[in-house]
Amino acid sequence: MSGITFWFDFASTYSYLSAMRIDAEASARGITVEWQPFLLGPIFQAQGWETSPFNLHAAKGRYMWRDMDREVARLGLPPVKRPDPFPQNSLLAARVALVGNTAGWGADFSRAVFAAEFAEGRQISDPAVLGGILEGFGLDPPTVLAHAQDPEVKLELRRAGERAAALGVFGAPSFTCADGDLFWGNDRLEAAMKNAVT
Amino acid sequence: MSGITFWFDFASTYSYLSAMRIDAEASARGITVEWQPFLLGPIFQAQGWETSPFNLHAAKGRYMWRDMDREVARLGLPPVKRPDPFPQNSLLAARVALVGNTAGWGADFSRAVFAAEFAEGRQISDPAVLGGILEGFGLDPPTVLAHAQDPEVKLELRRAGERAAALGVFGAPSFTCADGDLFWGNDRLEAAMKNAVT
Repeated sequence: MSGITFWFDFASTYSYLSAMRIDAEASARGITVEWQPFLLGPIFQAQGWETSPFNLHAAKGRYMWRDMDREVARLGLPPVKRPDPFPQNSLLAARVALVGNTAGWGADFSRAVFAAEFAEGRQISDPAVLGGILEGFGLDPPTVLAHAQDPEVKLELRRAGERAAALGVFGAPSFTCADGDLFWGNDRLEAAMKNAVT
Repeated sequence: MSGITFWFDFASTYSYLSAMRIDAEASARGITVEWQPFLLGPIFQAQGWETSPFNLHAAKGRYMWRDMDREVARLGLPPVKRPDPFPQNSLLAARVALVGNTAGWGADFSRAVFAAEFAEGRQISDPAVLGGILEGFGLDPPTVLAHAQDPEVKLELRRAGERAAALGVFGAPSFTCADGDLFWGNDRLEAAMKNAVT
């Protein structure tokens, strides 16, 4: 079975668009998806950016939100509710998602985090918000949140960022195929999948 | 009849992709296209960039060329031959295109410039290269090239850049509709056209 790796940062608007549709698109093509959270921060910092390029460049930022409004309408998602601050700190959510990947609820949790952030405008850096999501899946929030701070989980997230950089990832969402080919952006999701099955 | 304005810089790789297909896509939808050359340089400089972001960020630049290779294959265009240096200086070509817009050969000339640059890797800042293209259209290169340096043509190009910035344009290609709505990137050509007819 062909596979694709979905590189996402919970703070990333276009990662949200991919998260809400990638599993359906993949299963329609018989492709498996590896949900791989990582942090864009260190990659942006290596480019000399201290925050999102959408904040650094006002016109680009204004356009991005307008484009997001149009894209969610096109994709049948709820209207965007912008989280404040943007970008959100995605560190804790990423660590919890890694715990979830091992336990089998990573993709469901990740979709729920993205929806809370961009359809409800909630604070995904708040342990209570993440705890509420975990509770909804019948999990014990204190146990999971404590596990997410284990040294090996922290290391796993750091290693994911290093692997991303080594693969040439410079933004999110990105998609990599078994042949190492890289695709960037929600607009390239279909192309990445087409590449994965050939 | 609905119309769309196509904002392009001759130095821009993704503007090339749009240039080679926009008239066919527009005429299939009964849309008119205004070909509007402008210079990205001043807009990038206002963002603090002295050259193309594809040069400033190595991973992004490597990816862009890989993506271009895939996109020309998908669109049925010849393999990319990268011009050196990249980006090319697009000033003279933009001024000649404005002369051509008034005279009625602007779109044909612009397509030929893009093809020379990205399918043949030629120097579009070279008056001899542009002259060869003009000659192919039965025009007199010295006359046209002299006209392109008229003060009113220079002013027209500067004004186009100011209008672009006022419309929120921050990259190329961009598309604007009568309602002022902005679309950025070859990937949004279809969305812009759909917006133009509604």
